[in-house]
Order: sequence, then C-alpha cells, then structure tokens
Amino acid sequence: MSFIATPQFMHFEEALPLTSGASIRDYTLAYETYGTLNANRSNAVLVCHALNASHHVAGVYADQPKSEGWWDNMIGPGKPVDTNKFFVIGVNNLGSCFGSTGPMHTHPDTGEVYGSSFPVVTVEDWVNAQARLLDRLGIAQLSVVLGGSLGGMQALSWTLQHPDRMRHAVVVASAPNLTAENIAFNEVARRAIVTDPDFHGGDFYAHNVIPKRGLRIARMIGHITYLSDDVMNEKFGRELRGGIDLKYSTQDIEFQIESYLRHQGEKFSEYFDANTYLLITRALDYFDPARPHGGNLTLALARARAKFLLVSFTTDWRFSPQRSREIVKGLLDNRRDVSYAEIDAPHGHDAFLLDDPRYLSVMASYFDNAAKELSA
Amino acid sequence: MSFIATPQFMHFEEALPLTSGASIRDYTLAYETYGTLNANRSNAVLVCHALNASHHVAGVYADQPKSEGWWDNMIGPGKPVDTNKFFVIGVNNLGSCFGSTGPMHTHPDTGEVYGSSFPVVTVEDWVNAQARLLDRLGIAQLSVVLGGSLGGMQALSWTLQHPDRMRHAVVVASAPNLTAENIAFNEVARRAIVTDPDFHGGDFYAHNVIPKRGLRIARMIGHITYLSDDVMNEKFGRELRGGIDLKYSTQDIEFQIESYLRHQGEKFSEYFDANTYLLITRALDYFDPARPHGGNLTLALARARAKFLLVSFTTDWRFSPQRSREIVKGLLDNRRDVSYAEIDAPHGHDAFLLDDPRYLSVMASYFDNAAKELSA
Repeated sequence: MSFIATPQFMHFEEALPLTSGASIRDYTLAYETYGTLNANRSNAVLVCHALNASHHVAGVYADQPKSEGWWDNMIGPGKPVDTNKFFVIGVNNLGSCFGSTGPMHTHPDTGEVYGSSFPVVTVEDWVNAQARLLDRLGIAQLSVVLGGSLGGMQALSWTLQHPDRMRHAVVVASAPNLTAENIAFNEVARRAIVTDPDFHGGDFYAHNVIPKRGLRIARMIGHITYLSDDVMNEKFGRELRGGIDLKYSTQDIEFQIESYLRHQGEKFSEYFDANTYLLITRALDYFDPARPHGGNLTLALARARAKFLLVSFTTDWRFSPQRSREIVKGLLDNRRDVSYAEIDAPHGHDAFLLDDPRYLSVMASYFDNAAKELSA
Repeated sequence: MSFIATPQFMHFEEALPLTSGASIRDYTLAYETYGTLNANRSNAVLVCHALNASHHVAGVYADQPKSEGWWDNMIGPGKPVDTNKFFVIGVNNLGSCFGSTGPMHTHPDTGEVYGSSFPVVTVEDWVNAQARLLDRLGIAQLSVVLGGSLGGMQALSWTLQHPDRMRHAVVVASAPNLTAENIAFNEVARRAIVTDPDFHGGDFYAHNVIPKRGLRIARMIGHITYLSDDVMNEKFGRELRGGIDLKYSTQDIEFQIESYLRHQGEKFSEYFDANTYLLITRALDYFDPARPHGGNLTLALARARAKFLLVSFTTDWRFSPQRSREIVKGLLDNRRDVSYAEIDAPHGHDAFLLDDPRYLSVMASYFDNAAKELSA
C-alpha cells in the first residue's frame, strides 16, 4: 500500500499567452506534491504527464486503496525517484479532463462551456503554465524535470524554453517530434471521434451525449501502438475467447485480443473527454523544436543547459530508440552531458510505465546521483 | 496501354458447403482470363486476390484507358507472368463487392438482400469455389497458383486442399496466419464499421444509406499498415498542407499525411461494401492451416506437393519476412522444393504491387522456368 496523495488546485487569473496567438485566463491547474521541499528549495522534481494521465502520479487517495498514481512504481519513499529525498510535483495539463481547466469547463467571457472553443494548446504552452505554477510554489530551479512519451517532450521543451530552471532532464520513451506514421494514427483516432454523430462539433455536453463510439475506436488504435507485436503475441496470440470452437461470425468476439481491445475502448470512453483527446493528440503532432531551425535538431538543442538522461525501449515502435538517439546526437553535437540507456524490454511503448528491473535501476542510479548534488 | 480485358461470369446452382457448416447455392463468380489455354490444358495460372481487389487483375476495359487491373505491372504479354505463354485466370471471391455473389445480392431462398445474413466465408471456402470454376473451365491441374497478401494465403491453402492440382505455388508478402496485432487492426476497423449508425446491423441497403464513416476509418487504418514508416516519412514526413503557417486547429488538415489518409478513406467509402469488409477481414483472421495440427505448421504443410516460390519485403511490418520464413521452414522440414526471395524494398506491404526491379526479376525468372516445363 502506497502513501496518501491529495490533489491541490491553483487558480491563475492572469492570461497565459498561447503559441496559437490566443490566450487563456482564469484557469486552474490541478497538481499534487509528494515529499518535502528542502530549505534551499533545490530538491523539486517536476513530472510531466502523457496522453492518458494526470497530476495523480504516485500514492493513493484516502479510502481508495486501488487508486495508485500512474507512476507509483517509480515515485515514492525508497523508490527510484525517492520522495524521502525529492519534492515531487505532478501537474495536470491545460485542456485535460482530470482536474485542470479543460473543454468541459466554462469560458470566463461567455459563461458557456468551452467545448469546441477551447484554445489549441501546445507542449510549449503547457511548459509555460507549469513554470507559472513553480513560480507560485516558490521554486526557481528544479533538480529534475521528468517525463515519459508526451511527458518526455515536455521535459525536453523545458530545457529549451527555460534552460536555467532545471539541473537535469530525464526524457523517457520520447521523440523530438512525431513521424508521419505517428501523426497518421492520431489523425485516424481524431476522425473517429469527430465523425461520431454524438460529437456535435465538439459541443456534445449541451446535447447530454458522449461520442463513445469514436472514443472507443481512438483508444483501441492507441492501445495497439502502445504494445509491441511480440508482447501481443505472448499475451493473446491467436487464443480464442470461447475455447476451441469458432463461431464463424463477423461481429461476435472470437479472439482474446478482440475482447481485450473492446474492453479497453469501453473503459476509456466512460471517463475520457473527446475534446481533450483531440487537443492532446494535436499537441503531440505540433511538437517539433527543430522546426524553427529548418529541421536542424542540433541547432534547436543548443539552448539546453541541463544534464540529460534519455531512456528508450527496444520494442517501442511508437517512439523507437532511433528517435531517442536523434536527441542524444543533437545534445552531444552541443557537447552536453548526456546519459543514454536503451532498455531491452519486450513491452513496447508501455514499457516506460512497467517494472523492468534494468530500467528502474537506471532511473534509480540517475536520481541517486542527482540527490547527492543536493547535499553536496 | 495494356490489352483489353473482359469480365466473365459463371453461375453455380449446386450448393457449396462452407467451413462454418452453412452453405451457399445459386451463386455467381466473376472472372477474367488472359492469354490462351494450350492444347494439353497445362499452362493455366490462377491469381488469387487480396482485400481490396478483384478478378480484374490485368489489362484495361474497352474505352476505359485508366482501368488497369491491380497487377497489370506483373501480368500481361512480355511481363513477368507472360500471357504469351500462360493462360491467366483472375477470379473474384465470394462475398466480394466487385461482381461475384456478395452481401448486396439476393438470397435465393428469401428473395431478400443478404446483408448481414451472408454466410461467413473462409480462405478454404474461396479455394473450393475457385476449384469448381477450374472444373468448369476444364483445367485439372494449374501450372501456378499465385497470390499476394491474403491472395498468398489462398495460394498456400490451395496446395493443402488440392495438393495435386498445381505444379507451383507463388506466395508473395503473406503469412501462415495473422498475428494478434494483425487481428487487432482488423477488429478496430470492423468496430468502426459496425458502430456507425448507418450500418444498421448490416442491413443498411434497405435504409438506403452507407456506413461511410466506418468505412473511411477502416481504410485509413488499413492504409497505415500497408505503408512502411520509412516510406511515409519520405513521401509525407511532417510536411504541412498549407505551406509554412500552422492553423492551430484540431479538426482542419495541417499535415499532408492527414490529407492523404482522408482522401484514401473517402474514395474507399464510395465504392467498397461494408459487409464485404467484415467478411474479408474475418477470413484473414480465421486462416490458420496449422490450427488443426496443434499449431505445428510443419505438420500442416506435409500435404503440400507443389514447388514453391515465397517472396517477402524487408519493410513489410504487416506480413513481415519472418512470417514468410516460417512457411519456408515448414516446407523445408517436409523436404519440399522452395525458393525464397527477401526483397530489400522501402515500401512496406504495398511493395508487392509495385515496380521493384529485383522483385519483378525474381518473379520473371520463376515463371520463365515454369513456362519451360510446359514445352518440355
């Protein structure tokens, strides 16, 4: 059983300018903290979340013993990111559906639910919103900014937008931008949502419906890309759900993998917001720090000052090791201090959330060293 | 400009027993033939088609100069499968929407459109239907049975169901069965179709609508799996459709890859039948000749008597070279005569339809040798 976590909320009246040219004001960020900020405020670790996650990174909620945070295996007392040493901050991004201001909330100007009018947010916007939260918490410089997948993109972007506000960046299972195939999968998921008749152009809240069909399809597609072919074969293979006899039906479930995917889609459609899905996948598509530098990642990374740990997983075909190596190369071109671990794990992209001992030990070592700096 | 092709139709009154236990009677098969059957009826090549294809394998229709068959680069006078030497037969499978009896046709018992009541058909059923067509055409033994992808599964199944009815089998970009990931992609596509409100449980014909939303999503997913990550990056990369300025929109097209996929989905939804999509993806899921042998492919392939050419493509992640090698190994275990070419091509699964010179030259050599047997 893990420690008790308590969500907190910080309200910001002042408008946050966004990359798109729009801005957002009177917004709230949900966050959690674990551990204790030390006297010289130097031991903070900011954890950035990926698509389907939130500020609830570790611990459990009181009286909800099964409510472990999404990175509870990584973060906590005595864990690789040791909350006996670090003050860990999890923050929910703008546009999310888990507590921070999002499309299901009310626009302060109109008094109407945002819906489709919620502004498009980028990784850079999230980072700036997170920086304002750190200002409020009185944290000038982080020990570590940490994230996996889309969270890794935020960690990387932190080192470029606010290069002096962290000593370390830990970027796990991430990429310097999406490939055409990555964008393609996002686009199919978005089309499934947007063309669901219950989407109503994004204003489905007013119609008291949820575009569940689209959300289910989006989640099923996502799930396929989180797992490796190998682990799918090992977990499900061609196993039938109904024993050895085939039903010969195009719509009934025959294979275990179908049952698993339908279940994942169903669960997701019951709690995830459709507009949030569009916003977050778009933020993924847009992220591309090399773009203003003509696609030259080395030039883009010249601003970074942090020390880096990059981690990738051999069977991750969503954000393959090659994508992490591009970041490593760009940093080395700039003579930055980089550690890189390519973990031989069977689980695909999902590996960054799982208990691979080599992975956890690489993370533990890196954070141990970062902790030693604190007492030095 | 290619030669003129003419579709033909053969009607079968007698019921065809199906793997499911059901049967189908009073059905029609659409087919085309190219070249001339020789005097001893030994030069026939049967071409089996994949998901989105038909009996129109090569040539063009009169007065439709752009109507080339789907394998027109492979088959014709002087081409790798040379119709000056071979009598080539293309046949449309049962359940298709391109001419043979399918879900949009009328059930002979009820006089109603089949719709959702069209029987589930398997690769084995298709092969048996094709065998009946050969009986009618007076062809006891093929020179070659040939197919790519799902067509390759049919070619493989021919060698097990009717081992003495061909001298050669050419199996391109295929697999001995689908992986869990393959089934997963099929299942998402089917769910997108089935949950489209315009699907009406498969009986949408009576409602005068088409489940286009679902078909579009299904095709977009399919298309991603036909292409390699590399070729997608080369063809589209992160190129924007609207020049250099971003729109910051979740629904407008930003990237060329989005535009391409939407276009492919749209086109497909205008001509492909939703029930056919379900039937064909299910036939893919079910195909598994090793299943009755406890998953032992070597045991399953013991029945085969043909000589084999297997071809795979290095960047095909849908039916990877490893899957073709499984078939090669199973055949070699049985001391069969097998040639195998693993073509280093960038185009992913789609490569089997494209003009890779090494691929075309492997095919040409193999068919040249098969042709020499005819005159020997």
